[in-house]
Amino acid sequence: MHVLIIGAAGMIGRKLTQRLVADGTLGGREITALSLVDVVAPEAPAARRARVTTTALDLAAEGAAVRSIAGRPDVIFHLAAIVSGEAEADFEKGYRINLDGTRALFEAIRHEGARQPYAPRVVFTSSIAVFGAPFPEAIGDEFFTTPLTSYGTQKAIDELLLADYSRRGFFDGIGIRLPTICIRPGAPNKAASGFFSNILREPLAGREAVLPVGEEVRHWHASPRAAVGFLVHAAALDTSPLGARRTLTMPGLSATVGEQIAALRRVAGERAAALIRRAPDPVIAGIVAGWPRNFDARRAAALGFRAESSFDEIIRVHIEDELGGRLA
Amino acid sequence: MHVLIIGAAGMIGRKLTQRLVADGTLGGREITALSLVDVVAPEAPAARRARVTTTALDLAAEGAAVRSIAGRPDVIFHLAAIVSGEAEADFEKGYRINLDGTRALFEAIRHEGARQPYAPRVVFTSSIAVFGAPFPEAIGDEFFTTPLTSYGTQKAIDELLLADYSRRGFFDGIGIRLPTICIRPGAPNKAASGFFSNILREPLAGREAVLPVGEEVRHWHASPRAAVGFLVHAAALDTSPLGARRTLTMPGLSATVGEQIAALRRVAGERAAALIRRAPDPVIAGIVAGWPRNFDARRAAALGFRAESSFDEIIRVHIEDELGGRLA
Repeated sequence: MHVLIIGAAGMIGRKLTQRLVADGTLGGREITALSLVDVVAPEAPAARRARVTTTALDLAAEGAAVRSIAGRPDVIFHLAAIVSGEAEADFEKGYRINLDGTRALFEAIRHEGARQPYAPRVVFTSSIAVFGAPFPEAIGDEFFTTPLTSYGTQKAIDELLLADYSRRGFFDGIGIRLPTICIRPGAPNKAASGFFSNILREPLAGREAVLPVGEEVRHWHASPRAAVGFLVHAAALDTSPLGARRTLTMPGLSATVGEQIAALRRVAGERAAALIRRAPDPVIAGIVAGWPRNFDARRAAALGFRAESSFDEIIRVHIEDELGGRLA
Repeated sequence: MHVLIIGAAGMIGRKLTQRLVADGTLGGREITALSLVDVVAPEAPAARRARVTTTALDLAAEGAAVRSIAGRPDVIFHLAAIVSGEAEADFEKGYRINLDGTRALFEAIRHEGARQPYAPRVVFTSSIAVFGAPFPEAIGDEFFTTPLTSYGTQKAIDELLLADYSRRGFFDGIGIRLPTICIRPGAPNKAASGFFSNILREPLAGREAVLPVGEEVRHWHASPRAAVGFLVHAAALDTSPLGARRTLTMPGLSATVGEQIAALRRVAGERAAALIRRAPDPVIAGIVAGWPRNFDARRAAALGFRAESSFDEIIRVHIEDELGGRLA
């Protein structure tokens, strides 16, 4: 089986690559070829059996999408995107990559299929940013998509295209709306959502972290490991129960910042929790107030998608996957 | 005030033109210029004061969208679209006109505004085809859009673009999802929905009509006059209560075919009703089974949009507007 990952150099892309190489199979079939594509060439992992190729490619550039699928991969993970903040700051770039790039990929697959029958599985990562406030207490599977960012708009459009191309039989698509990924590894970043990870990751490493919002703030989380699990599960899922509704809100954990900190205290002690410095930032608090707090993702749960059920578990996943199983 | 109608040669476009010329004003302001655009040149009405121009233009053609708004209209009605059946039969044409054409218009407005401040009112006609079965008993204002046709997909994407461009301040957009228009004037057409109009229009003119489905079939209707009323109301509406949710399901009348026929009998007598010939067509019945039957369009109603409340009224509107007030 030939697997293509577009956006393989990103955080989730790298973790997905590691998982596929470790498993050696996907949905019970051996992975014989693994193509890794991103705007910068992804690192090639040491794979035992799969032939690995890495390519630097801007999906929205002329001919790039056609090149990306030239090897007729059986499964395509499409993770590539301009992130929310950048898509908001640069209107044209966001639409070019997140809409035109995705459409170019879908069109390339359609044209390849017209040349010679071809209908790969396409796993597309969407986002809870397709939803916009005001929200119900828990957002159900049939709630409408009224995004409040250009990024969310582009993802919602991609979801519609994914469904129509799948309905037409051009490919077999499935979209998964990821929760906010927590704990994000790496250095603290300036994303407005960064603090959700910072307040755990930094104290776990013995460093101070800044909390810009109140402890009552509630949000929707899943670990990087869970996100990779969603992707792998989606790649092998029987899509017939999805009907025409091809995108699923992934399960996650709805938790307050206070619950995050309590879990940190349980797992790593008071010394870790004491490293969180309160520095209220009304701008960040205002942005976060417009974000979803909770979902009722029963459709995905019924289809076997699984996330963590406590923040203790999310913290332990981080310690295992990022800190070699030991606290600093 | 300068008004532009894109899609002015279509049935709704012609009726909107007539209404604007008869009114001479829109939202209390005098219409000084009326630009009529369609893929074939629209007929120029005899206007008392407004300067009328007509242009044949394919909105998706290079430079056409820019040309269409060169006069910097204050209000733009964008009604142009490839209809459902054709967009399904010709995938590329549907996307080219219904998505790329609309996006080109939106982009032309954005670029014009970057050159010199400009943010016109844009009234966009969407469709209940953005919804896909299975449906709740009555589809509410927050039900999700999972279209089952490429046409519905394209309209849903346009709605998302309309909201994002409005949120960004590039224009002041409002989308209205029209019910099925009944009674459509003109000759019977081959659209799967044609019979809803045929079974009234033809008997009212003393001609036979074919009914391919059972009398229990329920659907969602508004007259052409109501549709024009929606457009005019949308053009002058204060959009601030819309927030980021820029598209509204229009009010309509949920009625069964049996209720349509009963109204025909009341208004035009048994002789008219007897002209309906039952010829069950499983293909058409199957298509229609996937269509919405009823909506709870309370948001639009609260904003002052009004449709007919009985089929007797819809039939009388047809007699007044199409038959000179008299039955055959």
